[in-house]
Amino acid sequence: MKNVPALCICASFNRTQIISDIIGTDIFPDHFLCSKDAATEFAEVKASGRPVVLVVLGPLGYSGIKLLTDDYDKPQSERRVKWIHSCSAGLDWYRFGELQKEIQGIPITTGKGGYNALLAQHVVYSILYFARQTAHQQRNRAAKKWDPFELEETRGLQVGILGYGEIGRETAKMLQPMYMDVTGVKRNQSAETEDEYGAKLVSGDEERDRVIRESDIVVNILPATPETEGMFDLERFKTMKRSAIYINIGRGATQVDNELAEAISTGVIAGASLDVFQQEPLPLASPLWDIDDDKILLTSHNACLTEKSFRDTIGLFTKYAKEYMTTGKLNAYLADAKLGY
Amino acid sequence: MKNVPALCICASFNRTQIISDIIGTDIFPDHFLCSKDAATEFAEVKASGRPVVLVVLGPLGYSGIKLLTDDYDKPQSERRVKWIHSCSAGLDWYRFGELQKEIQGIPITTGKGGYNALLAQHVVYSILYFARQTAHQQRNRAAKKWDPFELEETRGLQVGILGYGEIGRETAKMLQPMYMDVTGVKRNQSAETEDEYGAKLVSGDEERDRVIRESDIVVNILPATPETEGMFDLERFKTMKRSAIYINIGRGATQVDNELAEAISTGVIAGASLDVFQQEPLPLASPLWDIDDDKILLTSHNACLTEKSFRDTIGLFTKYAKEYMTTGKLNAYLADAKLGY
Repeated sequence: MKNVPALCICASFNRTQIISDIIGTDIFPDHFLCSKDAATEFAEVKASGRPVVLVVLGPLGYSGIKLLTDDYDKPQSERRVKWIHSCSAGLDWYRFGELQKEIQGIPITTGKGGYNALLAQHVVYSILYFARQTAHQQRNRAAKKWDPFELEETRGLQVGILGYGEIGRETAKMLQPMYMDVTGVKRNQSAETEDEYGAKLVSGDEERDRVIRESDIVVNILPATPETEGMFDLERFKTMKRSAIYINIGRGATQVDNELAEAISTGVIAGASLDVFQQEPLPLASPLWDIDDDKILLTSHNACLTEKSFRDTIGLFTKYAKEYMTTGKLNAYLADAKLGY
Repeated sequence: MKNVPALCICASFNRTQIISDIIGTDIFPDHFLCSKDAATEFAEVKASGRPVVLVVLGPLGYSGIKLLTDDYDKPQSERRVKWIHSCSAGLDWYRFGELQKEIQGIPITTGKGGYNALLAQHVVYSILYFARQTAHQQRNRAAKKWDPFELEETRGLQVGILGYGEIGRETAKMLQPMYMDVTGVKRNQSAETEDEYGAKLVSGDEERDRVIRESDIVVNILPATPETEGMFDLERFKTMKRSAIYINIGRGATQVDNELAEAISTGVIAGASLDVFQQEPLPLASPLWDIDDDKILLTSHNACLTEKSFRDTIGLFTKYAKEYMTTGKLNAYLADAKLGY
């Protein structure tokens, strides 16, 4: 088995062992696991001189990548890491900006795709959570109060999606039969002005700002990049409708958490559904924890986490691995470390 | 204005005045309102000998209909009530079984259609409310607990809809892009085995029982008729999966509330979303109030109530009224008092 790379798995969130179990030993018989400290846990495999395929998830992934790619002064063919696979779609956890020399020439693939439907569903859920006044209904139940109040109408709502890609399209597909109007803001202008799910397509900073201003629901699916960092600050929230709901299923780095809490608390916007935060786990001191259930729906970066979605995503790695071991190629799935996804 | 009928409006839920305001006086200048006691509030118009068009909503409608249709010994053309319009789709509030002589020959129309999208949306909302463990997320927020737990997977869920008509089709249209599998149980066998939204179509008691047995989500949209009364009792719930969620957006008379509470509390089924009840308002003594938010989503028959949906439904009456006053006909919209919808 000398030519078969060692599989190194380096994951946060207590996920290392389960990733190893799901992948199994069919393709890569030898697994090396890191769930705390790469320097000690990967010491043996690093010293062995074996080629490595590296699977990463979460902030810990950065240290595993940094440790195993420190042989960047060697010719490409002699380097240790042959391939890096991220179990998430976004790459920001791995701080590739700091590892440019290290990752140069190493193919990178991602779990992109496996979570689309669940993230889109979280948008639908968040809109209905607020429109149907879930917390109000629950208080009535607890108080045994019969109260046939009027719900907020969702038909005709303007939903603006920033970072309109596969997840956005999946969202538009679900919102169209609910009679909501979707506008997707894309990074690059597309040839079409409307897609198959009825979403209007726009691009450019001016159009982005208009969509944020005019939408009833603002959905943030932006990747974390230097351009998007802190984009949603208090000034930005002030341009939104006071009745608007902000939903972030992208990356927490694109918002300023404390200013978001202030915007909700002072009525600058009506509420928010947040699955991601500037720092995760969300620190105890964050004022976001203190906003009540009428105005916030706070999830622990688990909006797309089901047993199936996790297995499906690891299944993507297995699929790529089979092709890699037979053809030696990964080209179809390569992510762009510079773009961050 | 002698030939223009007097408009009599008889509604529960404090809705009489708003119905009158929405209809306006363009077509029927004279409104007579009843919101408590038909015998006194309709005394004047009854004594006047004028022809009457009667708009009803809720249990109070029964007394208004009974009072104004007591001239059933006269020839049809000389009778007082020319037309009855129900603002709801279901007719069970009006107990037509007891008023067979009284309503004989009087055209009856309903608000059918105006609420379809909102009721379908309530099914989507209810499924996501439980699958995404809303109460669990809210407790974590209140406890400032970061807890990325696995959600329940909804893709591939078997959703069985009993009383599959317009509302059911609207529901299937929304669930299809969410990758759930819908089976619609219809009263009469249809020529097709699958509809345009991918719902499998079945009929007959045997198939109905199979669908109740095999579904992960059982959606009750049955009308209240002698055949459906009390259909969902403890024995019926025992045939369902223990992991199943029961959703009733039809009529409360089709279930036995106390036995449903027992089924949820003892784990016979996993939970329920209930918008309708045997008696409404739900009595304080009902054990359903005491089930916690993890297992019940309890709404006050307002799952389809928005300002727009109410106005749209009254708008249907206005549309029918225009045609009635110009052509004298209502045939296209007639409900069947015997079927109850």
